[in-house]
Amino acid sequence: MINTLISEIKKKNAPIVVGLDPNPGMIPEHLLKAAVAEQGETLEAMASAVFEFNKGIIDATYDLIPAVKPQIAMYEQFGVPGVAAFKKTVDYAKSKGLVIIGDVKRGDIGSTSTAYAIGHLGSVKVFGKEFVPFDEDFATVNPYLGSDGVKPFIDVCKERNKGIFVLVKTSNPSSGEFQDRIIDGKPLYEHVGEKVREWGNEFMGESYSYVGAVVGATYPEMGAKLRKIMPRTLILVPGYGAQGGKGSDLKAFFNEDKLGAIVNSSRGIIAAYKADKYSHCGSENYADASRLAVEDMLLDIRTAVGLV
Amino acid sequence: MINTLISEIKKKNAPIVVGLDPNPGMIPEHLLKAAVAEQGETLEAMASAVFEFNKGIIDATYDLIPAVKPQIAMYEQFGVPGVAAFKKTVDYAKSKGLVIIGDVKRGDIGSTSTAYAIGHLGSVKVFGKEFVPFDEDFATVNPYLGSDGVKPFIDVCKERNKGIFVLVKTSNPSSGEFQDRIIDGKPLYEHVGEKVREWGNEFMGESYSYVGAVVGATYPEMGAKLRKIMPRTLILVPGYGAQGGKGSDLKAFFNEDKLGAIVNSSRGIIAAYKADKYSHCGSENYADASRLAVEDMLLDIRTAVGLV
Repeated sequence: MINTLISEIKKKNAPIVVGLDPNPGMIPEHLLKAAVAEQGETLEAMASAVFEFNKGIIDATYDLIPAVKPQIAMYEQFGVPGVAAFKKTVDYAKSKGLVIIGDVKRGDIGSTSTAYAIGHLGSVKVFGKEFVPFDEDFATVNPYLGSDGVKPFIDVCKERNKGIFVLVKTSNPSSGEFQDRIIDGKPLYEHVGEKVREWGNEFMGESYSYVGAVVGATYPEMGAKLRKIMPRTLILVPGYGAQGGKGSDLKAFFNEDKLGAIVNSSRGIIAAYKADKYSHCGSENYADASRLAVEDMLLDIRTAVGLV
Repeated sequence: MINTLISEIKKKNAPIVVGLDPNPGMIPEHLLKAAVAEQGETLEAMASAVFEFNKGIIDATYDLIPAVKPQIAMYEQFGVPGVAAFKKTVDYAKSKGLVIIGDVKRGDIGSTSTAYAIGHLGSVKVFGKEFVPFDEDFATVNPYLGSDGVKPFIDVCKERNKGIFVLVKTSNPSSGEFQDRIIDGKPLYEHVGEKVREWGNEFMGESYSYVGAVVGATYPEMGAKLRKIMPRTLILVPGYGAQGGKGSDLKAFFNEDKLGAIVNSSRGIIAAYKADKYSHCGSENYADASRLAVEDMLLDIRTAVGLV
């Protein structure tokens, strides 16, 4: 799957991913009304509206982008119907040829990480039959529990040609509270980066490893350092746009082959119709605004990385 | 909710929690058959069998224990139907007067942690109505992202009288890989423990804080140290039983008031009927075996802590 992702990034000249992180306030009125007409004022209706919202954005952008990254928290907030909408979104995006990065940030002790890996990336054997529960292509993983919390994910990835992105340096303001603390002369995130390289060496694709890393766009200097520590690791870069990361900060995350990073934008794309710049589209045409925002993001990033 | 949990622990003289972490191999044949007869060989049938399994254990033990801790990974491995069984388990256990610790180990950047907190502990406003999506009483939280990944949980807890347990030192063999690394003369887990105390001071119950900690039974010396660092923090202690933690190791996790810790056992209780000691119950009476195992665990822990 890492080979597919890299080849789609090259084919579309688009090292970007759209974060499908819908909050209630982002869903246009006409979608809410249609859902309520069918299912009443219920969580099920909200979940249906969320799926229709995602479907519109996927339909309007899938030819421009290699991947989408649904953030499962935004679905869990609507309970079981929300999780069902997450699964429908995964399946629909896959039907349009997109790679799915499940932003689930799971991680636990060994046997429990195995269950998460099975649920999100693997298959489960039940009554002698094989089922694929959520079937994302990649999942994000939290490293706090160490190797035996991460390796079960890699084992499942090997069986089914899937991949992971391990949190190394996150994009949020307080990420430094623990991640930047100095251990033997180096910040914790560098130690985690070294482990990611080590885990990744065990499971290489053609040019990049099946074990990727998450490094926030909001910390470009640390990104540059981590780029060197993990030369064959694909870096998933959140924090562009709404969180403050700029295109000009992003070059540091890429290798000389102009590959090696995939930049996420969520709110900036999916809620584009609410921004002054794209508000002329109107809320009914929210998906057109998302397409325009993707085109602008692509121009910004291609320019920064030298892909134009 | 922390006051309720402490008062139930006292009333039942039982500083323990039963981990509802069902794996397919644990579910007795008669439950699988009954589910397949109704729903065929599907994930839905597996999820129904999981719920019936849990229900049996809850019915057989609820008068002895203050709380249950369903591990959501074990449900996510069965996809959307599994997550629905998680929710049914939460609701059923609550109907029997049990406190629910959702072992979800979530944690993300601020806005995303808010969504997780809403989903698991809070309420979501949709169409002007308020819904409670999963409605556990406590959730476990991963601290790798720092304060702004944890505080949104505390904010939601304050609104709805809920609590969290933050991972400090986990029970697994490789937990030391990052957690034990020395920063300014102290291991990372002590720094996290100090933050837990600080976060907890902002939201105190009568005797213990709404912000608890997770510290593995497998590391009793570290538990003793953390007990001193976080005197008013309830410690959730996994790793007893199947993972190797012994009753005699547990005294260190308790305060002089003989409170301050709640010890989890999962496999040792829910799969007790498979152990030689309780196999005389037979798989049809798996819940009786669970009750016997709870009684034995209580004796072991009461003896160790001086509660007999």
